[in-house]
Amino acid sequence: MPDSHSADGFAVTTGALPSSRKIHVAGSRHPDLRVAMREIDLTATANEPPFRVYDTSGPYTDPAVRTDIRKGLAALRTPWIAARGDTQSCPPRTIRPEDNGLSGGEESAVPLFDRGDRPVLVAREGRAVTQLAYARAGIVTPEMEYVAIRENLGRARLADAARADGQSFGASIPDYVTPEFVRDEIAKGRAILPANINHPESEPMIIGRNFLVKINANIGNSIVTSSVAEEVEKLIWAVRWGSDTVMDLSTGKNIHTIREWIIRNAPVPIGTVPLYQALEKVDGKAEELPWDIFRDTLIEQAEQGVDYFTIHAGVRLAHVPLTAGRVTGIVSRGGSILAKWCLAHHRENFLYENFEEICDIMRRYDIAFSLGDGLRPGSNADANDAAQFAELETLGELTKIAWKQDVQVMIEGPGHVPMHKIKENVDRQLALCGEAPFYTLGPLVTDIAPGYDHITSAIGAAMIGWFGTAMLCYVTPKEHLGLPDRDDVKTGVITYKIAAHAADLAKGHPTARLQDDALSRARFEFRWKDQFNLSLDADTAEKFHDQTMPADGAKLAHFCSMCGPKFCAMKISQEVRDDARARGMDEKSQEFLAGGAEIYLPASS
Amino acid sequence: MPDSHSADGFAVTTGALPSSRKIHVAGSRHPDLRVAMREIDLTATANEPPFRVYDTSGPYTDPAVRTDIRKGLAALRTPWIAARGDTQSCPPRTIRPEDNGLSGGEESAVPLFDRGDRPVLVAREGRAVTQLAYARAGIVTPEMEYVAIRENLGRARLADAARADGQSFGASIPDYVTPEFVRDEIAKGRAILPANINHPESEPMIIGRNFLVKINANIGNSIVTSSVAEEVEKLIWAVRWGSDTVMDLSTGKNIHTIREWIIRNAPVPIGTVPLYQALEKVDGKAEELPWDIFRDTLIEQAEQGVDYFTIHAGVRLAHVPLTAGRVTGIVSRGGSILAKWCLAHHRENFLYENFEEICDIMRRYDIAFSLGDGLRPGSNADANDAAQFAELETLGELTKIAWKQDVQVMIEGPGHVPMHKIKENVDRQLALCGEAPFYTLGPLVTDIAPGYDHITSAIGAAMIGWFGTAMLCYVTPKEHLGLPDRDDVKTGVITYKIAAHAADLAKGHPTARLQDDALSRARFEFRWKDQFNLSLDADTAEKFHDQTMPADGAKLAHFCSMCGPKFCAMKISQEVRDDARARGMDEKSQEFLAGGAEIYLPASS
Repeated sequence: MPDSHSADGFAVTTGALPSSRKIHVAGSRHPDLRVAMREIDLTATANEPPFRVYDTSGPYTDPAVRTDIRKGLAALRTPWIAARGDTQSCPPRTIRPEDNGLSGGEESAVPLFDRGDRPVLVAREGRAVTQLAYARAGIVTPEMEYVAIRENLGRARLADAARADGQSFGASIPDYVTPEFVRDEIAKGRAILPANINHPESEPMIIGRNFLVKINANIGNSIVTSSVAEEVEKLIWAVRWGSDTVMDLSTGKNIHTIREWIIRNAPVPIGTVPLYQALEKVDGKAEELPWDIFRDTLIEQAEQGVDYFTIHAGVRLAHVPLTAGRVTGIVSRGGSILAKWCLAHHRENFLYENFEEICDIMRRYDIAFSLGDGLRPGSNADANDAAQFAELETLGELTKIAWKQDVQVMIEGPGHVPMHKIKENVDRQLALCGEAPFYTLGPLVTDIAPGYDHITSAIGAAMIGWFGTAMLCYVTPKEHLGLPDRDDVKTGVITYKIAAHAADLAKGHPTARLQDDALSRARFEFRWKDQFNLSLDADTAEKFHDQTMPADGAKLAHFCSMCGPKFCAMKISQEVRDDARARGMDEKSQEFLAGGAEIYLPASS
Repeated sequence: MPDSHSADGFAVTTGALPSSRKIHVAGSRHPDLRVAMREIDLTATANEPPFRVYDTSGPYTDPAVRTDIRKGLAALRTPWIAARGDTQSCPPRTIRPEDNGLSGGEESAVPLFDRGDRPVLVAREGRAVTQLAYARAGIVTPEMEYVAIRENLGRARLADAARADGQSFGASIPDYVTPEFVRDEIAKGRAILPANINHPESEPMIIGRNFLVKINANIGNSIVTSSVAEEVEKLIWAVRWGSDTVMDLSTGKNIHTIREWIIRNAPVPIGTVPLYQALEKVDGKAEELPWDIFRDTLIEQAEQGVDYFTIHAGVRLAHVPLTAGRVTGIVSRGGSILAKWCLAHHRENFLYENFEEICDIMRRYDIAFSLGDGLRPGSNADANDAAQFAELETLGELTKIAWKQDVQVMIEGPGHVPMHKIKENVDRQLALCGEAPFYTLGPLVTDIAPGYDHITSAIGAAMIGWFGTAMLCYVTPKEHLGLPDRDDVKTGVITYKIAAHAADLAKGHPTARLQDDALSRARFEFRWKDQFNLSLDADTAEKFHDQTMPADGAKLAHFCSMCGPKFCAMKISQEVRDDARARGMDEKSQEFLAGGAEIYLPASS
């Protein structure tokens, strides 16, 4: 069971996952690298080495590290950033009451995070401090080597494992990920490594279709925030179960302060939609939002360390009327806000008009674009329509502008799409956006199951991941209905780990099947504990088992509660296997099949 | 909320679903037909007629019918069966203690169902009383017309609805289902209408890829059965949420008696695996199972009214050794039992050798074959292997033998299959089995998520349904771990309704999108109650909504808890729409796009 150490109001969930240990793999180009992974110990009868899995959970699952959210995580990237010599400390922008949604003089109920001597960094004049700029210059950064080791897991020592098959739809997944391969994919714009220089606490990860499919979880503040630990806990809970990045979609009061707490304690990249905060500063009136407030909000969040920004620059004035005939209009918050702005001023979207200046800001901190799909369909009826694809075309043009400025880019995608229209989304996105990584929400393959939209969307997510989406944004059971609680977040994350892993399997990712095979062997050999521990959610698997067969002895039983001892297929099957081997039947059977496997035909037929 | 009327120990769940009414549509060839459907009333502001949906729940959701499980359901098909004049009453087989797993003299704790004057029917000598035989003879039975009306729902009056698009992979879904179309599909073997003459209580339904995709729920008795109502309730609960057929997979004591209670109260076809009961009669010893006991069990269940039998006749002696190198061997209970029998006797599977005699029994009652895939893969590693496809080839040959005898056939399919290997299963099945309906379990697209296998399998189920599977067998969250409880059954059924509906949408079923569109309109117009009531599970949708916004007034609010009033995309979008219309922007936008939609290029680029 997870612990929650310290009872002083700043406790969060910590502790190793069942039968798991944190390990660290050293770098070779950069020997100081220590790439965190998780190893699952199997029972002795397995006669198998510990199983190594990708680990997003950060130091919170490492009993050797005593975390304290008041201090934040160790800044593991600081020496790498410093060594590049292209950044400088700058006097930070002054925090204003409106950053926290407070009126002048109003006191915040939320304590400030004590930044201590943490500097605010910015690029030296004229320098692009982005992983894309380094990659293009032929530099393999420590971040890139970290990612290579992380993606490989134990791939090197599994050279003799069964080769994976798959249908990759044009993806080029290497047998072995080298740091140079990572550099090359980033240089080509086919992958991004979100790594704001002001978020040195994050463990490098990569988003691209030639790597493992990633997932994102959205979190947001409660209306009344009683405790910062509660907000940080949402992040820690999401990464504990496997979220690769987290988007903080908070609105309302104290968002600046809470964001600081989140980023300082985040081992994964953090994304935001800066528009939400900017709009708060003009009291929610979209038509009153001026460029300078938006621009200032970008700098505010850049200095805090946000790793990627959703920017809805593709919602152009001329696209808006294309949504008029839709069943569900515009369902993206950002999209609807900008559509309203465009119509109110009858002017082109100011994010579109100021796009180069936005790029200029983002390259100074290495913030990646997540180009927002403000006109994504909100129902199956509106999928793949003119509005959606007109915006996608604009996103493709904006991608090229950002790339010119050395800014990393990914592209957001739908939404609600029936199965037969999913592939077209990927095909168009790849073609229009020069293979920039695709980052999709679902898609939901039907609209008729509110309360179960983690499932309707997991179907679409697994498919779109297979076709080439690089990161899947989760959907929880509460989608369309209310705010997710702790259980919903976990359900959403596990559901999306399933979709991402299913996509990796189908793409033919070289090591994806290893975990399936290890778990299946445990299942066949009735190693119940190993079956639980190798699964995405050991706690739930064991709990479900115990509901039917609670005794500890049942976890050693060579049958399960579904079939019972007399009928257990796996048990009988093992007898069959032993028997067949003893008889040398395999050979006989091959003869039979080679001979045409002529069917017995009853005399009467 | 559902009622549970009568508190005398025989209570089951009854009562209409929220805002729903049972309606009955009359036949035209057979004017006495009254085809049950459900109509959902929408709120007045919708200005839409009630929405009609397919209804599997039987009289239990009809407040006009007072059901009593001690009396069973009304035998609506009895006059139709009698009118054909090809059946006769026969002296029923004597029930023996071993039918209920009791030793001689042992008293059953379970009360007998009082059959009253219900006869046991059998075909007159030499007659095939199957829907296939009638279809081939050009006869449109009342069952066929019932099905045609049921499948159409309100299709006729929706002629001007938006045409559905889709990718059907060779399926031929008509715009409008005529009774003649139903007859023709059955005659070709492309669809089955499971309808044992001894189960006249069931409401006719059809399984075939040119009809709506169907789902099956498995139920089984508890180890200690305290109440027959509890067993019948499992059935009623499954059909309440949408299960099209139910398989009774009970083993152990009192199965004959409980099966009688289930069938007499079942408005849907019931399937079984007779092997399970036969094996009980020889105390679980597969190698001791003789043909005559198996044969007698078929007749026992045929007389009770089982509508389809899973028969594992395709597990041939020569296939068994092909499983020896598998990661998870044989995972079908039936498959492993027969494999053991084959090896123990070193003889061909006795079901294969006696297949013609089995056909002869089934044609006398109109029981459909569900040809079992005893060698289906139990892990992704074993998917699409030689053992699986060798058996499928045998099933294709058996299909043709059954068809010669006028017996209806469907084919069972996997199991555990990664996404990229799913389509091959359908393609081979269609080719080898002459387009007989495919009936698949999942498939699960990854093995690593025990506790979430309703989701891993729903991904595969939606896809395989799209590709051509006619019926999807549900998987509950407890798969691989334990026995499903009431909540698990509901979750499994709703999850599979999602998969089946997603498949219908993607195939381009003409009316599938109507429900999505109606719900999406309700969502866009903030008709919360309509959104709940049009969903697959109104209770859960409303409960989730109320967890965040409990007040009744919130259900009238023109925003939702996720965005709040200031940020609500749908609200803003409605303003945008009104505004755009007022300005005649649509036209301007079209001009813009027609002119090449030249992007604004900042001077510096």
